[in-house]
Amino acid sequence: MIVPARKPNLSYILLKTGLVYDVRMRYHAKIYTSYFEYIDPHPEDPRRIYRIYKILAENGLIIDPSLCGSDDIGDYMLKIPIREAKKEEILAVHSEEHLKFIESTQNMNKDELLKATEKGDSVYFNNDSLLSAKLSCGGAIEACKAVVEGKVKNAMAVVRPPGHHAEPDAPGGFCLFSNVAVAATSILDSYPESVRKIVIIDWDIHHGNGTQKVFYNDPRVLYISLHRYEQGKYYPGTKAGGADQVGEDLGEGLNVNIPWPVGGVGDADYIYAFRKVVMPICYEFQPDLVIISSGFDAADGDVIGGCHVSPAGYGQMTHMLKSLARGNLCVVLEGGYNLDSIAKSALRVAKVLIGEPPEELKQINPKIESIEVIDDVIKIQSRYWKSLGPGYTGLDYNLPSIMGNFDKLTSQSPDPTFIEVASKHERLNDAVRDHQRTALFEKYNFSTLPLFIEKLPNTQSYNASTILCSPDIYENDKIVIIVHDPSRIWARRDPITGDLDPANAVTVDKSLDFIEWALKQKWGVIDINIPITITGKDDATYNNINTSQDILLYLWDNFLHFFKAQKIAFIGVGEAYNGIIHLCGHRDVRKLVKASINFVDKATALRAVISTIDESIVDWFFRNSLVFTSSKHSCWGDKDTGNTKRPRKKYGRVLRADVEGLDGVIDERFDEVCTFIQESLEDYESESDSES
Amino acid sequence: MIVPARKPNLSYILLKTGLVYDVRMRYHAKIYTSYFEYIDPHPEDPRRIYRIYKILAENGLIIDPSLCGSDDIGDYMLKIPIREAKKEEILAVHSEEHLKFIESTQNMNKDELLKATEKGDSVYFNNDSLLSAKLSCGGAIEACKAVVEGKVKNAMAVVRPPGHHAEPDAPGGFCLFSNVAVAATSILDSYPESVRKIVIIDWDIHHGNGTQKVFYNDPRVLYISLHRYEQGKYYPGTKAGGADQVGEDLGEGLNVNIPWPVGGVGDADYIYAFRKVVMPICYEFQPDLVIISSGFDAADGDVIGGCHVSPAGYGQMTHMLKSLARGNLCVVLEGGYNLDSIAKSALRVAKVLIGEPPEELKQINPKIESIEVIDDVIKIQSRYWKSLGPGYTGLDYNLPSIMGNFDKLTSQSPDPTFIEVASKHERLNDAVRDHQRTALFEKYNFSTLPLFIEKLPNTQSYNASTILCSPDIYENDKIVIIVHDPSRIWARRDPITGDLDPANAVTVDKSLDFIEWALKQKWGVIDINIPITITGKDDATYNNINTSQDILLYLWDNFLHFFKAQKIAFIGVGEAYNGIIHLCGHRDVRKLVKASINFVDKATALRAVISTIDESIVDWFFRNSLVFTSSKHSCWGDKDTGNTKRPRKKYGRVLRADVEGLDGVIDERFDEVCTFIQESLEDYESESDSES
Repeated sequence: MIVPARKPNLSYILLKTGLVYDVRMRYHAKIYTSYFEYIDPHPEDPRRIYRIYKILAENGLIIDPSLCGSDDIGDYMLKIPIREAKKEEILAVHSEEHLKFIESTQNMNKDELLKATEKGDSVYFNNDSLLSAKLSCGGAIEACKAVVEGKVKNAMAVVRPPGHHAEPDAPGGFCLFSNVAVAATSILDSYPESVRKIVIIDWDIHHGNGTQKVFYNDPRVLYISLHRYEQGKYYPGTKAGGADQVGEDLGEGLNVNIPWPVGGVGDADYIYAFRKVVMPICYEFQPDLVIISSGFDAADGDVIGGCHVSPAGYGQMTHMLKSLARGNLCVVLEGGYNLDSIAKSALRVAKVLIGEPPEELKQINPKIESIEVIDDVIKIQSRYWKSLGPGYTGLDYNLPSIMGNFDKLTSQSPDPTFIEVASKHERLNDAVRDHQRTALFEKYNFSTLPLFIEKLPNTQSYNASTILCSPDIYENDKIVIIVHDPSRIWARRDPITGDLDPANAVTVDKSLDFIEWALKQKWGVIDINIPITITGKDDATYNNINTSQDILLYLWDNFLHFFKAQKIAFIGVGEAYNGIIHLCGHRDVRKLVKASINFVDKATALRAVISTIDESIVDWFFRNSLVFTSSKHSCWGDKDTGNTKRPRKKYGRVLRADVEGLDGVIDERFDEVCTFIQESLEDYESESDSES
Repeated sequence: MIVPARKPNLSYILLKTGLVYDVRMRYHAKIYTSYFEYIDPHPEDPRRIYRIYKILAENGLIIDPSLCGSDDIGDYMLKIPIREAKKEEILAVHSEEHLKFIESTQNMNKDELLKATEKGDSVYFNNDSLLSAKLSCGGAIEACKAVVEGKVKNAMAVVRPPGHHAEPDAPGGFCLFSNVAVAATSILDSYPESVRKIVIIDWDIHHGNGTQKVFYNDPRVLYISLHRYEQGKYYPGTKAGGADQVGEDLGEGLNVNIPWPVGGVGDADYIYAFRKVVMPICYEFQPDLVIISSGFDAADGDVIGGCHVSPAGYGQMTHMLKSLARGNLCVVLEGGYNLDSIAKSALRVAKVLIGEPPEELKQINPKIESIEVIDDVIKIQSRYWKSLGPGYTGLDYNLPSIMGNFDKLTSQSPDPTFIEVASKHERLNDAVRDHQRTALFEKYNFSTLPLFIEKLPNTQSYNASTILCSPDIYENDKIVIIVHDPSRIWARRDPITGDLDPANAVTVDKSLDFIEWALKQKWGVIDINIPITITGKDDATYNNINTSQDILLYLWDNFLHFFKAQKIAFIGVGEAYNGIIHLCGHRDVRKLVKASINFVDKATALRAVISTIDESIVDWFFRNSLVFTSSKHSCWGDKDTGNTKRPRKKYGRVLRADVEGLDGVIDERFDEVCTFIQESLEDYESESDSES
């Protein structure tokens, strides 16, 4: 019963990978004005495209012994004929003035060229700039076209000058025409049936302001850029690359910026971003064509980019993007200035395009800053992409997207949606503290210490719950004062709705352990909770650090002075610890205060004692204080970069825990702290008495 | 300054994809014992491997006009010579008894063969079974070897009988030798330097109990299985495929089960699992070789599997796995019983192995059940894999993994780690309710209604906070009684530590809106909070549904009867609604109760009124009640499968909201509910009076 094969002799042809390259794109070059420019040439160097072409030949991906761009380049890649971009193609993206200006450089004399170079934003011109730029742009179009028409399985356009900084009406950042934007527009216009949606992935280390602008309100193009940002200080130096720039009108939600807050990112960060954001979004968008704006200036070795993406990393990203749009993928060169780095990176990309598996990566763990920024991007983009919501189940209910907008009201530009949500509901930290008060009342007979400071919020919950104290507080000669941020909470989130399940959640507050321990020593206890935010309208002006300062001064001036206490120990937990440091600088607490123990998480800056009274306070503070930081606190520098440091003495005796998170740090050091306080508050005479 | 290429004429050879196939593996076949078996043959049919081989030829991936397994098969694939597995290779995994038994089938007569077939667990034998099985096993070894030795870039072993159900000392589930386990063991032993770690991805729809068992405590092999499970009821029918089976000893954390709770899963579910679990774990493990235990019985069209993975889906998964281990990937056939489906699926896998981009997927949204089970898997596996933790930053602190273990204590086998955590900390729902009590006291002068039921938890917080009422409750002639689950909480999670930030969290409780609305109508209000779990040791025996029933009976018998109220409306929210239904069945409430409104989320089963008093209650209940369910509540059937239904009358008047989540449903229907209650409690006489 053997069924014969239906077409056993059909021969299977694997399509080749297309390649665009032409030596004439080397003609655009900076006119030397000094010997210095000769020995240290402009980074956007004509050799960039040659070096990429050469490494492809050296590795046998193409056959071209003369390296001058022959037409027959062997079995794996197919040469795609280049041409100059047509006027109407360019004008579909750029203004007439822009085109006319670039055209005018063709006939300028040297002085005019230098003047135009000087006037522009990081661009240069010679009389061949127009030709090179038109070829670069036309090359990008032809590469995309060959992919869309099925002549090649995918393509790589090794072109220059780059394009992604060129805005519709201005060149910039080494870019004359917005090559990828022109190509994408041309394809969308020429193949309206087969190409309705294009994704542009811009992994050049700089934000592609030009490309973003062209498609900012265009629903046909999803633009995703990963770039070094540094709050807009990194080139191009505007806020256009911020994560909050999501597109407008019909294009809203189709502009995705992943702005690295620091340099030094590498494979792990990019793979993390791809896994968490880029690939889910692209799957959901279902593009017909993927274009990579492929700068290689995030590559290891590029001093302008200052990052560490390896050739393997570029290979992995290319491999992932190949899974989209039936493999219709076109790689167009943008920046990248280390000639070795760009050649090696482009080689790996080309190998993956041809069909080789990507090399494996060594680095797995992204930077903390990257995890944080990806979390922000998800928060912002989950409004538009179901696959970034908790369960991406296609639910219409927008709870997860409201959820996504939660942000600290203490930050400079609070999210209006969060303010709206928060104004309607109760802040959880208030609920938890209110309950702590009840519990401490019931368990240890604690009471509220009256709090009357005019500028503090005047709500019942705030007044009643902020300062609590043990019943013997007026009499006890030893007092432990705990000043802390609100409890942390551990909980499981419903994967579908994003709700937390309060039945499967617990409050975690190590401060309570200190209270119990101090009560066991028969000492008085004052427990001060400094909320980060508060329920109600006062929240807009509320600041937790100022509050902790005000409250500790108030406590000192109105109570501690008049209590019978002879010895006091402070324990500060989290941002609230600022109040203790501030107090030590503004009152002479040395007679009463015998110890100050503080726990500081990575997000809380260390604070120096700056005395308004007596310089020797700094020394006293150093001898009587411990400040425990989480392992990755920035005061220790960055182990990864080898740039380690030690905090100075004015911060007190700073010790580094092995773990992250306030609760973890306290857990690790609890016994040590108890011993330190015990020794500090110990009463030598009475002790020897009892021993005798 | 043109630098000549260093080796411009090196010719680049793309390695081929290896293929193992041999007609002798068709000899193992079931001996017909009836005409029925002839027309409806055993699913593990000899033609399975032939059909795959044939489709490769038909599509030109291999050249073999006679289809009999020729040695020269063209440009894209390389024939890997097969051989029988050696005794010592098999014995590295299987017991001597096992091997001896399989060997013995070679010389059995027909009766003995049929007897052995009948005795085994879903296996059959003929006199060629040994030969086929040894070839199948040896083929898997040779395929892996060719990949590891770099003779091919990757490989596909089209072999049968399959292997993954064969345990060390017993054949089973159509499997005689554990092919993949034998191959992996052989490779690890033969190439100790170059292959230290192997990942086995088992995407056969059945759990690979044999493979799992072999490597359960082996640190060199990470076994990941995606399979239909149904709480262990699906074949192989044990709990070995549960998500909680994580490996033992040195292998702990290296066994990952992704057990689909239902059939019908498809591309979206598998891609979701790959993105969320499989790929992150594999990246972190950094294998030297990846073996796919490639059953195609999850394929669309396979009636045994009952699932819907498309050829494109298999292609996408293969593509993802190609990114690991420098592409060292070996695909070994396991099950899959629809001859068309397995052929098409294998063809797509082979194309991707050769280097073609995978086809795009149409289906994006996984099933809710899949999202939930992936969430469970992450919870369990995050103890072992940093990349599944909140931030995978390489933190040592195990908070995220403790977090991962949170689970309902009301479930049948609570996680011991959670019990430990929960016993040390306060349940958040208690804290929130305690705070609600304070707020209702202060704002509306609510008080506690005494609660004395012997079997209920006797904690201060529970007694004081469970039933709250407005001050006029004894006098008011109209009362609204709200019986609800605890507040939901929305919060943002710290991406690094996994802590929730209580400053950026709010409690959400739509029940409070009903309270305010009822008070505005000048009606009395009773607010009953039924915690899902409680703080402290009583939690172990606590059951929220029973509690809601007990409390409502208690309220009826001890209070409502003696209040002045003439008209009562109930509002039930969440699981707590059970108490209302129970009350309506056990007391004749018809004179007093004028309306019962209930809100039920997807996880809460509908409950029928079963009257112990009077059958007409059912009809009364239907006329006076509304039950709003979330959009995806199972009472409406499954829209995706077209298997829709309507809940019966005994459940009351059940209405379907457009959204998910209790708060969403209440939001959507709030006004409707207010009107319904208003009309039910309305007092016609007094109304006409006031109008005159």
